[in-house]
Amino acid sequence: MEKYLAITGGVGGAKLALGLSKVLEGEQLHFAVNTADDFTHLGLNICPDIDTLMYTLSGESNTELGWGRKNESWQFMDALKQLGEESWFNLGDRDLSVHIIRTQKLRAGQQLTEITQALFAQFGIKASVFPMTNDSVSTRVTTEAGTISFQHYFVKEQCVPKVQGFSFEGAETARVNPGIQQLLLDEDLHGVILCPSNPYVSIDPMLSLPGMRDLLHNCKAPVIAVSPIISGQAIKGPTAKMMQELSIPSTASAVAHHYSDFLDGFVLDSSDAGLKNAVEQLGLSAFTTQTLMVTLQDRIQLAEACLNFINLLHRS
Amino acid sequence: MEKYLAITGGVGGAKLALGLSKVLEGEQLHFAVNTADDFTHLGLNICPDIDTLMYTLSGESNTELGWGRKNESWQFMDALKQLGEESWFNLGDRDLSVHIIRTQKLRAGQQLTEITQALFAQFGIKASVFPMTNDSVSTRVTTEAGTISFQHYFVKEQCVPKVQGFSFEGAETARVNPGIQQLLLDEDLHGVILCPSNPYVSIDPMLSLPGMRDLLHNCKAPVIAVSPIISGQAIKGPTAKMMQELSIPSTASAVAHHYSDFLDGFVLDSSDAGLKNAVEQLGLSAFTTQTLMVTLQDRIQLAEACLNFINLLHRS
Repeated sequence: MEKYLAITGGVGGAKLALGLSKVLEGEQLHFAVNTADDFTHLGLNICPDIDTLMYTLSGESNTELGWGRKNESWQFMDALKQLGEESWFNLGDRDLSVHIIRTQKLRAGQQLTEITQALFAQFGIKASVFPMTNDSVSTRVTTEAGTISFQHYFVKEQCVPKVQGFSFEGAETARVNPGIQQLLLDEDLHGVILCPSNPYVSIDPMLSLPGMRDLLHNCKAPVIAVSPIISGQAIKGPTAKMMQELSIPSTASAVAHHYSDFLDGFVLDSSDAGLKNAVEQLGLSAFTTQTLMVTLQDRIQLAEACLNFINLLHRS
Repeated sequence: MEKYLAITGGVGGAKLALGLSKVLEGEQLHFAVNTADDFTHLGLNICPDIDTLMYTLSGESNTELGWGRKNESWQFMDALKQLGEESWFNLGDRDLSVHIIRTQKLRAGQQLTEITQALFAQFGIKASVFPMTNDSVSTRVTTEAGTISFQHYFVKEQCVPKVQGFSFEGAETARVNPGIQQLLLDEDLHGVILCPSNPYVSIDPMLSLPGMRDLLHNCKAPVIAVSPIISGQAIKGPTAKMMQELSIPSTASAVAHHYSDFLDGFVLDSSDAGLKNAVEQLGLSAFTTQTLMVTLQDRIQLAEACLNFINLLHRS
């Protein structure tokens, strides 16, 4: 059986993840998910990217808000505010059930992988999921105004402070999830797809884990990435803003360059066909297709394009 | 300033507590609350009697259900059930805010007293509150079917198993809340009122704390109790059923006997006036009034009757 590993962060990456889940069998599809956005809030262990993927794949995501669970209510938050507690991070009543279960099981000594896989199963998701590590890694954002935690930057400050760099606290001693390591060495692995997630805060944390870049570099199956930048713009989130602040051209080819040490192929939006040459000069194969995902059909088409590209790379 | 200490468990006792809060100034009124019903559920520290008192005194209690918060919703529980988790203990969305704050602060090293007093203040309650102890004490119920935790007996088993006895795990090494101890030695203490709570599972846990019975016995102010039994029946909860199962006559005078080593006076319902003699034979003063509390006015009248009784005992 041909297996695939999709590496993803939150909302942007989860769109392609959903497409992949519609075109591959559950047993074929494996996800490696960023956990460096995870944080403890009100004593609860919150894993934003894992939950976004879980809600997206199970049809439970709140498409109106763009985050959280559908059919959500906010009675808990309302009561919390009345008690004078911090309310900058919204936790819906239904969403809370996931955080409370996770927190209880972590405290009881279970590993994040085990807990996450049990939750995905409860949500009826057939694909397998691996948090990037069972260890604690935390993205810290260095800004003009000082170094702050990722959620502080992303939610509380709404990405306003200019970024100067990122660090991943705990990464140097964290261990790549053994399930991910095993998969990257698996003879049956047919392709690795980096979903169009933010390179700096969704994918880099995973790449910062000791041995991860080498695992991808040495992986026998083609490793491709889908550009999160289309025509110089990020469709979702602060990727382009971050690139500008880091004095990196906010182009798809700059993202390709960022991954070029381990990548075999790069997927550009058709509107960026002019960058194909620049990508190929990095020693990568380039593939153009529509990468903007508005409808479910767009997600499925991009997933199919990625699989076709991987098959092409196998033949070349 | 004349100070009063009211000792209470949950729903039954909280009715009189509300009456007292309407006839006394906030600074005069102090509560000692049972914490032996407290338990950890889904990783959350839940204090049923403290919360019942807090919701009752702040007008936040759910009078339709008879427990929990008013204007409550159940989205969290609904989502929890869908995840296949235990759902025998209902936690409302608004109620959850209290448990989550308490759990977080306990884990951060705050004491239950400090946390409880901060919550009461947030709920706008002027009276002061003292959990019976900051240490962990857990009521265990010995039944025909084995020894189980109180919440297991009370909520999960709905008080069906026949009880054979009770034990209070941790009581022997627990320390009476220093605030309660101080109050019982305070020159300004004018009276102590045992609210009409269950003697075995709401009041006895407090009496089982080392030194507590002596503190009450040696207290200079009159110590009175209000019978939780009226005409042989418990108005709320399993008190009468427990007494029968323990082969104790389910009468008000049996309750007076239970406390007779430290009590000065006992309040009987007018319908139990025939038991006045039996109470007096225990060496206690007896006082009859309407103790059934249906309306707020009933609660206030019983509170006033208790204060009158205490004044009478001061003069005698």
